Amino acid sequence: MSKVVKCGLIQCSNPLNDETKPVAEIQKAMLDKHMPFIESAAKQGVKILGLQEIFNGPYFCPSQDTRWYDAAEPVPGPMVETMSAIAKKHEMVMVVPVYEREMAGVFYNTAAVIDADGSYLGKHRKNHIPQVTGFWEKFYFRPGNLGYQVFDTAVGRIGVYICYERHFPEGWRALGLAGAKIVFNPSATSRGLSEYLWKLEQTSAAVANEYFVGTINRVGIEPLGDDDFYGQSYFADPRGQIIGGTASDSQEEVLIRDLEMDLLEEVRHQWQFYRDRRPDSYSSLVEP
Amino acid sequence: MSKVVKCGLIQCSNPLNDETKPVAEIQKAMLDKHMPFIESAAKQGVKILGLQEIFNGPYFCPSQDTRWYDAAEPVPGPMVETMSAIAKKHEMVMVVPVYEREMAGVFYNTAAVIDADGSYLGKHRKNHIPQVTGFWEKFYFRPGNLGYQVFDTAVGRIGVYICYERHFPEGWRALGLAGAKIVFNPSATSRGLSEYLWKLEQTSAAVANEYFVGTINRVGIEPLGDDDFYGQSYFADPRGQIIGGTASDSQEEVLIRDLEMDLLEEVRHQWQFYRDRRPDSYSSLVEP
Repeated sequence: MSKVVKCGLIQCSNPLNDETKPVAEIQKAMLDKHMPFIESAAKQGVKILGLQEIFNGPYFCPSQDTRWYDAAEPVPGPMVETMSAIAKKHEMVMVVPVYEREMAGVFYNTAAVIDADGSYLGKHRKNHIPQVTGFWEKFYFRPGNLGYQVFDTAVGRIGVYICYERHFPEGWRALGLAGAKIVFNPSATSRGLSEYLWKLEQTSAAVANEYFVGTINRVGIEPLGDDDFYGQSYFADPRGQIIGGTASDSQEEVLIRDLEMDLLEEVRHQWQFYRDRRPDSYSSLVEP
Repeated sequence: MSKVVKCGLIQCSNPLNDETKPVAEIQKAMLDKHMPFIESAAKQGVKILGLQEIFNGPYFCPSQDTRWYDAAEPVPGPMVETMSAIAKKHEMVMVVPVYEREMAGVFYNTAAVIDADGSYLGKHRKNHIPQVTGFWEKFYFRPGNLGYQVFDTAVGRIGVYICYERHFPEGWRALGLAGAKIVFNPSATSRGLSEYLWKLEQTSAAVANEYFVGTINRVGIEPLGDDDFYGQSYFADPRGQIIGGTASDSQEEVLIRDLEMDLLEEVRHQWQFYRDRRPDSYSSLVEP
């Protein structure tokens, strides 16, 4: 891995903002909305670009409506193919979260990882699914069944951990044990629910596991649940510091930061958390 | 558990501050130093009182010197007996961290838990042992072998997690799974090493596990390692908020806070982290 890796995160709003429109029309508008930001990131030399949770859809989970099942597609599938061409053109690794359909009635909240040559490396399926007021995700997503994989990209080993999963220290740790150096956390989370935790949990995960975290949240009000998505995407370093501040809390933005990868080894030599763990004492964590 | 539990933490300095003195003399001075603070806590109605790591010793781990082995004693033993009488007198639960001797050459970094009637409930032995510059703990302490026990005191179920352990999310979680409502974290940690993490890790542990945390750090400069212990003991609530601010960063103090125990259920109903964990997917955490 090169010593400095330029990374980007895109936070977008829903341009149509009318959930009565056909699903395909919304998805096309969301994709179109992202394209100038993706081009901008590439032009600025970004080597790994992370997109927001189900980047090409509205956040439909304030409802529990089967019409949104139509937003799902295979992974790999059409959207991965579209993004693979873009990744290859710009020689840029991409983390592409979409709504995945495995077969009729079986859907996942997924993120595909595409390498800098456009090849599909694999996917993470969200393992932790909320069902709290306005975030009725258990209606839409089967819990993930692929564990906590890491992906050896052209610029290093990365992992993905989606939205609500950030509240669970276990998955962060599993990604660290698997050797992730940067973990991307695509999210859709709104004011009133989680904002007071946004800068606490991902920074502390970066500290506990001694890697970088890139966390992405959409922006803007979406009428389906009156959610006000508060953006503030950021990168945290292994000391838990937010690198160069967060993105806006209300504006669309591509946030670009240089990650000084030497810091990872420096911090791991200082603290030695991986040496001093006690896996022999953690058995209650895996009890059903 | 009553709805409000008044809890206290004592942060002290080493009154002799001369590590060449006989071990027993230092220990007596440390105990004497604590007594007025313990009396003050009791007088103010504290129901659970937490003391700092190896409360009656200097922090001797900047050295690696067998003379400090003499600071160890059985648990239960003389110090537990002394404190049991105090706990009974004041009807106050006490968390009493001492250097434990099990047999010749076998020592632990331990905390005894004493109930409000003076009975000894059990102990936690520090499971995670650092060995980093100036904190040569592997020389002094065998890693704990009692797991993550909880203690049903007169005012509710509590756990203990000692100092460096706070960097490890797994033990915090194990205590949560075992039903701890308050976790005490006696520490000895100094400026330059960990201060930038002090308000991040314990608050995030309180959030992830949805319980209260009381974290204690000694104060003052100790000459053995020129450590400047930065105090700032505090209680965090299950939303990760520090209750009423921290204690001083340089003065001795008994910090007393009311813990509103209803908040624990309120937060757990809102977030449902224990429902949505995926123990079936955490197997890598327990691999040797």
